[in-house]
Amino acid sequence: MLLFHHPISAPSRFIRLMLAEYREDAELREEQPWQRRPEFLQLNPAGTLPVLIGEAGVAIVGAFAISEYLDETRGPMMRDSRLMPDSPLGRAEVRRLVDWFLVKTEADVTRALARERVYKLQMSPAQGGGAPDSTVLRTARANIRQHMRYLGWLAKSRDWLAGERLSLADLAAGAAVSVLDYLGEIDWTAEPAARDWYHRIKSRPSFRDLLADRVRRLPPASHYADLDF
Amino acid sequence: MLLFHHPISAPSRFIRLMLAEYREDAELREEQPWQRRPEFLQLNPAGTLPVLIGEAGVAIVGAFAISEYLDETRGPMMRDSRLMPDSPLGRAEVRRLVDWFLVKTEADVTRALARERVYKLQMSPAQGGGAPDSTVLRTARANIRQHMRYLGWLAKSRDWLAGERLSLADLAAGAAVSVLDYLGEIDWTAEPAARDWYHRIKSRPSFRDLLADRVRRLPPASHYADLDF
Repeated sequence: MLLFHHPISAPSRFIRLMLAEYREDAELREEQPWQRRPEFLQLNPAGTLPVLIGEAGVAIVGAFAISEYLDETRGPMMRDSRLMPDSPLGRAEVRRLVDWFLVKTEADVTRALARERVYKLQMSPAQGGGAPDSTVLRTARANIRQHMRYLGWLAKSRDWLAGERLSLADLAAGAAVSVLDYLGEIDWTAEPAARDWYHRIKSRPSFRDLLADRVRRLPPASHYADLDF
Repeated sequence: MLLFHHPISAPSRFIRLMLAEYREDAELREEQPWQRRPEFLQLNPAGTLPVLIGEAGVAIVGAFAISEYLDETRGPMMRDSRLMPDSPLGRAEVRRLVDWFLVKTEADVTRALARERVYKLQMSPAQGGGAPDSTVLRTARANIRQHMRYLGWLAKSRDWLAGERLSLADLAAGAAVSVLDYLGEIDWTAEPAARDWYHRIKSRPSFRDLLADRVRRLPPASHYADLDF
């Protein structure tokens, strides 16, 4: 399998974590969506990440479609390590939280910070590259607190974010938080329960590859790869 | 079951269509999400629509979680009328398109037009009500063309949008298009294949309730409920 991804894209990281948890190998290919490469737009006319070329050679587009596809085709063999609960209501709660972290947190916080602080470094001036827009940064940063508070509340109320077992909800949150943590945007003193949860998920073998990611011209926050942050 | 919805919310309409296609009755309750009612925020801290109170009395939040829940619990009994294909790759294509119409079209076009032209009529000045912002309207309207072109391309290439059978992809597109059509925002002469497809889906019994919707102070475009538009 082949995954088109970007290291500072939370939905891409979500699928990388899921592939690792389900012990699937996929070749990673970095895509810069703002280039709007015609070959990539043929795979995904929306021009967004991630896109997985599955074992049948067909493009599976978007974190939502890919995660459900991987769970449908691999989940049943994972038994107790399956990342989706068995009950329809349990699955609904996991999907609500995947949506929260990969659509809402993405729109309120992550996409803006990734674009302003990372993508703009890699874009040409004609593509919109250049200095970050301080108004956009300020709005996104103001929103982080609410999202971290909700994460803290979930982490305090439950063993894992969607209930008793690790699920796709934890991977979605881990993907979003790890992007923000790379950028040094998280105040870990404010939400101790969220910090404990992140410590647990960050220590999983599936996280290793993400912690080794480095973006050209922007090294991670000093504690980013530290398991005792 | 009880569905919290708004008549001019595409994700709410998507679930209403699905409930009708699966012949499920649900009481409809109109929610104005900008009111941020504490009781509603308890059901869904994201404050978004739709929310379904299922037969177990538990809140199922968001179009993505609700549609998968209804398909998991009702789909198998629907046999040939099931709105999700049997193959994992077929399902991935349906999910890609649901995502396209309910996340991308929503962000590029529908949410902005609904907010500027409808919600602002119903909001108090303190809530952000008032005249539409012409810059926002202009941007959203410029994006409609690209979305209608893509819909036209899908309608020309396939029997239904995701393949040979009616699926959730058609309901998601129908929900988004019907909101824009209520508002008279669609130029039907530009995309004849999209028009033929919309004519087919609009004629289904599941669409009847949507065509009877009326918003206070904003009557629909004259052809909105007309099956020979």
